[in-house]
Amino acid sequence: MVFDKEKKKYLDALYKHDNSRKGSVDDQIKYVVDEINNLRDYYTTSSCAGRIVIIELPINGKKNEAKWLFTSHEAVKELNLEELNFSSHPAFFKQESFIIHLCARNLDSANKLINKAREAGFKRGGIISANKRIMMEILGTNQITAPVYYDDKIMVSKEYFELLLKIGNKNLETSREKLKKFYELIKKA
Amino acid sequence: MVFDKEKKKYLDALYKHDNSRKGSVDDQIKYVVDEINNLRDYYTTSSCAGRIVIIELPINGKKNEAKWLFTSHEAVKELNLEELNFSSHPAFFKQESFIIHLCARNLDSANKLINKAREAGFKRGGIISANKRIMMEILGTNQITAPVYYDDKIMVSKEYFELLLKIGNKNLETSREKLKKFYELIKKA
Repeated sequence: MVFDKEKKKYLDALYKHDNSRKGSVDDQIKYVVDEINNLRDYYTTSSCAGRIVIIELPINGKKNEAKWLFTSHEAVKELNLEELNFSSHPAFFKQESFIIHLCARNLDSANKLINKAREAGFKRGGIISANKRIMMEILGTNQITAPVYYDDKIMVSKEYFELLLKIGNKNLETSREKLKKFYELIKKA
Repeated sequence: MVFDKEKKKYLDALYKHDNSRKGSVDDQIKYVVDEINNLRDYYTTSSCAGRIVIIELPINGKKNEAKWLFTSHEAVKELNLEELNFSSHPAFFKQESFIIHLCARNLDSANKLINKAREAGFKRGGIISANKRIMMEILGTNQITAPVYYDDKIMVSKEYFELLLKIGNKNLETSREKLKKFYELIKKA
């Protein structure tokens, strides 16, 4: 079947023959990715465990010209904005939730996974394409997007930036807890 | 057929017999909602044109206890945070993109609409449930979420808050432009 052939291709790229991963999956989400790939009716195509970043976005809004000045997949205790290499573009503090892209065997299996995601507390996500393959997106929604650099200067006080980190770290933790709940729901099924 | 019966029920609730709306749709998005409802294979169930809000979120994260201190579906020129009625909860400035929830007749029609949404530049959205009905979500992704009130005090300078408004207003405008592109794509089809 086409699905099984495609799944094999993707998993061959993701895992070595001894089943250890080739290193393209974030550590904090790999147990979920592995569990999904263990299930007969799904395989993952990409994932991110969620992160805190400082990102430059050109005024023209072209995302492909974005530049990451800082990235962390773990809570950030301290970060000195003065030390970052800002250019003339606006830069944002962003805390993003985890995201998993995956392929489902059919509509029924896709729907089962959507129901688990809702049960785990993820209000977004679902089938993002159903042309040849049924492609899905599972993601958390809590996030922060706040400008930190604009018109060639840092726009946030030290106190405010610490607040961004505090809330961002907390969101990251909450999102990982829900991810664990999602894992338990799919493992049980 | 079940779909046509359900569609009639929803549209009866949304429109009066003379086809004017009963007032539950934001003005800025109604031309798109009307166009979707004109198409044979879809009907909308809810929508929001995108907005700028100041929202209180309890630390426990319970969204149903959120409280809106300010809401605008249009660009906000000026807003004095000092005049808002903050309580002891953290409050956030949020600029949210538009969102449309709708029902599609079948997987094929759902997929056609997803393709139009991608073409218009919306990278999220798709089928969010496929139990009895195929429910879809079409939405923009540009947004801002930044804390403005925490530990019983306003945390942003006047200059920084003006920057939030400036970027929020611009995002709202960009999101409406893409919405118009989406409208033209579905109208042409």
